[in-house]
Amino acid sequence: MNFVTFTTEQGQMWGLAKSGGVVALSALFPDYASLRDVIAAGHLAEVGEAGADLPVTHPDGQYRLDPPVPNPGKILCVGVNFPDRNEEYRDGAQNAGYMSLFPRFAQGFVGHGAPLVRPPESEQLDYEGEIAVIIGRPGRRITEAEALDHIAGLTICNEGTIRDWLRHGKFNVTQGKNWDRSGAMGPWMVPFTDPAQILDVRIETRVNGELRQSDRTGRMLHPVARQIAYISTFCRLEPGDIIVTGTPTGAGARFDPPIWLRPGDEVEITVEGIGTLQNGVCDE
Amino acid sequence: MNFVTFTTEQGQMWGLAKSGGVVALSALFPDYASLRDVIAAGHLAEVGEAGADLPVTHPDGQYRLDPPVPNPGKILCVGVNFPDRNEEYRDGAQNAGYMSLFPRFAQGFVGHGAPLVRPPESEQLDYEGEIAVIIGRPGRRITEAEALDHIAGLTICNEGTIRDWLRHGKFNVTQGKNWDRSGAMGPWMVPFTDPAQILDVRIETRVNGELRQSDRTGRMLHPVARQIAYISTFCRLEPGDIIVTGTPTGAGARFDPPIWLRPGDEVEITVEGIGTLQNGVCDE
Repeated sequence: MNFVTFTTEQGQMWGLAKSGGVVALSALFPDYASLRDVIAAGHLAEVGEAGADLPVTHPDGQYRLDPPVPNPGKILCVGVNFPDRNEEYRDGAQNAGYMSLFPRFAQGFVGHGAPLVRPPESEQLDYEGEIAVIIGRPGRRITEAEALDHIAGLTICNEGTIRDWLRHGKFNVTQGKNWDRSGAMGPWMVPFTDPAQILDVRIETRVNGELRQSDRTGRMLHPVARQIAYISTFCRLEPGDIIVTGTPTGAGARFDPPIWLRPGDEVEITVEGIGTLQNGVCDE
Repeated sequence: MNFVTFTTEQGQMWGLAKSGGVVALSALFPDYASLRDVIAAGHLAEVGEAGADLPVTHPDGQYRLDPPVPNPGKILCVGVNFPDRNEEYRDGAQNAGYMSLFPRFAQGFVGHGAPLVRPPESEQLDYEGEIAVIIGRPGRRITEAEALDHIAGLTICNEGTIRDWLRHGKFNVTQGKNWDRSGAMGPWMVPFTDPAQILDVRIETRVNGELRQSDRTGRMLHPVARQIAYISTFCRLEPGDIIVTGTPTGAGARFDPPIWLRPGDEVEITVEGIGTLQNGVCDE
């Protein structure tokens, strides 16, 4: 069951991805203006079942995919969460005991198939392949033992970054992590029903077919359950909130000299059990 | 003209603050579900005029003030923006050439009169008195010359912080700056019609009547026009977005030993031309 949000000439809708196109379900469930509302109501399973046997309403080519949850209340990203990633920062600092977190705004992400945008202000657009966790059940001070029960679904994130703007300020990273349309989420949200979907799955990133990142979530320094527990200590997690869980080593900044994304490049991030998020690159 | 958002038993409304209470305008303008919608439509002046002669609908004591724009798309805070502030960080680092920025979530703020919440996880709740700028006209890559034309209104922010959580991660500050109900905004939004409202006005913070912070916006290292220009370089500013513009020296962390806020304390932040934001402190 692959839940999607997509846009046609008639506006933005949500539904299911199927072979050959998508099934719009928004018109059948007018109480739910967005997939986030379905998640908040806890009705993913019912809605998915209702759409399971319906035919494609919009064939491929007649819609544009958006991030599966285009209107999250908040997006929190976990930094430096795989072995060797700390070195990529080349700042001489040890990795911290607690996890590093930074917020991103929803406007920083496009959907599957849309190009990442390289702005005229920088040549340092870089990819980061990650799993994004979408919160279902809200909570504050969630325990690690109960954390995974709060996940509604999973998607893939290209946590695209403008590297030379990461270190502008004293409280770095905000600027480099929040360029409009510099990242992507998608292609869809897979409902989360089994811890095995997240505990030890492979994340791979390819640029123009070349493997650049490959690791397993089992090697995360701060596993997803701990992320949910830690974040919810200070702020209540709400349905539709997104946690972007960290990228393996191998971003373009890792190379010497670094290899930045350029117009015409194609980035594919594959996560076992979810699918492949594909995006090109264009100049603004 | 002081625009407010407030909550009664009937739910959340918006309107005008007057002597003795508030005038609910939401019912008169059903097209605008929130003050943010009024701002986005560019109709603050018309709406304010319509309410100017109306009597109080909810006397004091029969409503609770919320942050004037309780549902901003994004909140960006400027750090280390007054002389001597950099020293308060005691990290040996020079101040950066560019401004420091960090996002905060809306759920981190209460309205005027509500207590700031000190969580059981920390004793280091600290105040920071600031002016918050609410964006009216949207824009990307706004020039400094045109920046002030994009402001819809001003309010006051207590950018409350849990100090010992600021430095948890490598990309610090996210955690310490995003505790639920640790900060405040209000009491109201004053429409912005004249650059003199922001260029050189006094900000004062008092704790239990004792003056702790006092400075003028004319001494900002990065003035508001530059903030709008810089931020809009990487992300489009939208109506209702909020920029929290930086605090003068004199937070509790400044003292030796530091003086943290405690239950029963009262914090008042006064900004010339806007008013006074008052909040108590309670334990969660």
